[in-house]
Amino acid sequence: MVARPAGSNLTIDGERLWSSLMRLAEIGATPKGGVCRLALTEVDKAARDLFVEWCREAGCSIQIDELGNIFARREGKHPNALPIVTGSHIDSQPTGGKFDGAYGVLAGLEVVRTLNDAGFETDAPIEIVVWTNEEGSRFAPAMMASGAFAGAFDADWVRSREDPDGITFAAALDAIGYAGTSAVGDHAIGAYIETHIEQGPILEAEEKTVGVVTGAQGQRWYEITVTGQEAHAGPTPMARRRDALVGSSRIIDAVNRIGFDFQPSACATVGMIECRPNSRNTIPGEVMFTVDFRHPVEDRLGQMDEVLRTTSADISAELGLDLVVEEIWHFPAAPFADVCVDAVRASAMHSGFEHMDIVSGAGHDACYVARVAPTGMIFVPCADGISHNEIESAEPDDVAAGCQVLVEAMVRLANESGSTNQE
Amino acid sequence: MVARPAGSNLTIDGERLWSSLMRLAEIGATPKGGVCRLALTEVDKAARDLFVEWCREAGCSIQIDELGNIFARREGKHPNALPIVTGSHIDSQPTGGKFDGAYGVLAGLEVVRTLNDAGFETDAPIEIVVWTNEEGSRFAPAMMASGAFAGAFDADWVRSREDPDGITFAAALDAIGYAGTSAVGDHAIGAYIETHIEQGPILEAEEKTVGVVTGAQGQRWYEITVTGQEAHAGPTPMARRRDALVGSSRIIDAVNRIGFDFQPSACATVGMIECRPNSRNTIPGEVMFTVDFRHPVEDRLGQMDEVLRTTSADISAELGLDLVVEEIWHFPAAPFADVCVDAVRASAMHSGFEHMDIVSGAGHDACYVARVAPTGMIFVPCADGISHNEIESAEPDDVAAGCQVLVEAMVRLANESGSTNQE
Repeated sequence: MVARPAGSNLTIDGERLWSSLMRLAEIGATPKGGVCRLALTEVDKAARDLFVEWCREAGCSIQIDELGNIFARREGKHPNALPIVTGSHIDSQPTGGKFDGAYGVLAGLEVVRTLNDAGFETDAPIEIVVWTNEEGSRFAPAMMASGAFAGAFDADWVRSREDPDGITFAAALDAIGYAGTSAVGDHAIGAYIETHIEQGPILEAEEKTVGVVTGAQGQRWYEITVTGQEAHAGPTPMARRRDALVGSSRIIDAVNRIGFDFQPSACATVGMIECRPNSRNTIPGEVMFTVDFRHPVEDRLGQMDEVLRTTSADISAELGLDLVVEEIWHFPAAPFADVCVDAVRASAMHSGFEHMDIVSGAGHDACYVARVAPTGMIFVPCADGISHNEIESAEPDDVAAGCQVLVEAMVRLANESGSTNQE
Repeated sequence: MVARPAGSNLTIDGERLWSSLMRLAEIGATPKGGVCRLALTEVDKAARDLFVEWCREAGCSIQIDELGNIFARREGKHPNALPIVTGSHIDSQPTGGKFDGAYGVLAGLEVVRTLNDAGFETDAPIEIVVWTNEEGSRFAPAMMASGAFAGAFDADWVRSREDPDGITFAAALDAIGYAGTSAVGDHAIGAYIETHIEQGPILEAEEKTVGVVTGAQGQRWYEITVTGQEAHAGPTPMARRRDALVGSSRIIDAVNRIGFDFQPSACATVGMIECRPNSRNTIPGEVMFTVDFRHPVEDRLGQMDEVLRTTSADISAELGLDLVVEEIWHFPAAPFADVCVDAVRASAMHSGFEHMDIVSGAGHDACYVARVAPTGMIFVPCADGISHNEIESAEPDDVAAGCQVLVEAMVRLANESGSTNQE
């Protein structure tokens, strides 16, 4: 736990933060109240320009790397200390909302403005980052530039990615004038804290204002194919059947049970199923279905994998079915650093907000940053857990609360690390 | 049980029967060794012509009703006694086999030829019937003319049915010259015994030559829709989910269990499933699947229905899911008459063939005839239980065995009923 109540006299301006959010949401606003601000478009440029303008007004210096990631810096007492960084993204889904990404960026701006208003000098520098193309809607995959920052993707490969019209990432980045010169990833970070709406229903259901994010779930995706014997439903006795759908149904139920058996925090979902020949009076000969496993602890995710394989094999053997379990994707769990999680939790307690530990079910830039720097996240509730939707909504008080926790956590980290964590 | 060993000195000519089968199979023969003889086509006419020619050569009189059902009659000692009838159909699936239907018709012809050779006079008349359009491949539904014979369909409705080219049943029947004048169903039957390949794997697996068919399965078909809540697979905790596919999987497993719990003879199949939105990382919000229940005892079929409804409701309630169980079709079980089943069983025992009681899983003309006359069936094995396929195959010895049982059973019935069962 962090003991020092540093920054306890700092109070963010919730109305200013909300006003900035609403102003940014005008850029790419949709008739239904959402935002369409695809990465590296003219509206993305306009939003970036506004952000940079606000940061310069707040006294920040701006650095942009080769993939368009923007770092806005407020100096600390020890300019050679590694910066304490916050931020997120300002691109959106085609039918996105006002808060996804924008909240994390503008909460960072509000932190800087609050420090300025109080004349508060942190030991380590404070930075706000805008990560390019988090959504992946125009250029796949998602979290592309934070992934490259963390070494998961090669910068040239990222630049070569094309949108549906054949325009490359590099050409689009040049067109909006946001291609910097510094190599992506050549920017050491002392600690990273990202605020975000939860994009899930937990905080709302638990009536908590702040989620102390302890990590991002690991994900393992599978395609399972069960093969039996196609036969007529009428004259084929039960005992002679090899029904691929009966076996698949038992495995699907087992997948759900695995989700419950690996609580807390496990998720296990079969979202897609295809049955062949899919005829009312024919015993199914082949069924394919998908499995989506998530868990914040990589070892537990590995155990879920083992139980899935063992259970599927047992069920198939009992029914005389053939089984193929193919893992098609594995994103390892990203537990966040104790120093960051503790700073967030201590700040939430100090601020007096109802809070709880929570795991991120969705992907965020923080999930990649966690590979190269101590990382944490702060969640606030969103209405009905809905995001990636124009009706995405959050309460001003909750948005302000997350930002208040952010400023306290960043100051704790900046003043802890500022004198020791030298670049 | 039938006590009198009537007809015990009669022996059918297996080679003659096989030769007739192979000759008929030349009409509409396919390159892969099967038959394409759709109802009321020129090849159906050619097959009918050959059958009628053979029957006339065997001394039979011919009567044709308004839907083209052909009755070939060999008189008995008591011409006013109700006839003992056998037969089946000579239309086929588009890629059908040599035996489905044709066997039942030509086994009847072989019975008449055998009686002729022995100079054997039955008490009641013997008749062979060819039912029009059993397959339903050209004109839907299947078993159309035997259904009309039994009062299940109106004759005018049958005549108005159209093939995919818009040609009516009536026009096609006129074109081949097989529209008779007598009203369908105006032809009382003393008893009806149909021979058929099993179209299933049981006799072959049990190494039996003859199946004593005790009835046709009743069928109840359902469409079940389970509705939950579509949600993201990542941030939605297991305990907060309403997963329509998990509920459906448990119901599908329960359907299979019902099949086993209502043995002997129950069949329970889920052949088709549709999941919405069917996306890898979205919890399914709605799933529709079909259920095909079959049982030879109508009360048991009703109990299966009750267990399905109760179990589905329990599973859905436990998971907070909405449930709609819709029955879309109900064909009641058709148990065959003891007098016919006993005659077949006694004849099989007397002939010394390995035999077993069996229930018909597929539909046959006999299932409709059973509504208006005492009915039985005789099954013989077919290779791998395959039919409705050009590779459909049966052994000459088995084909002969079924015919031998048929002649004995018909003579038993004709000589039992001939003096009492007057028209």
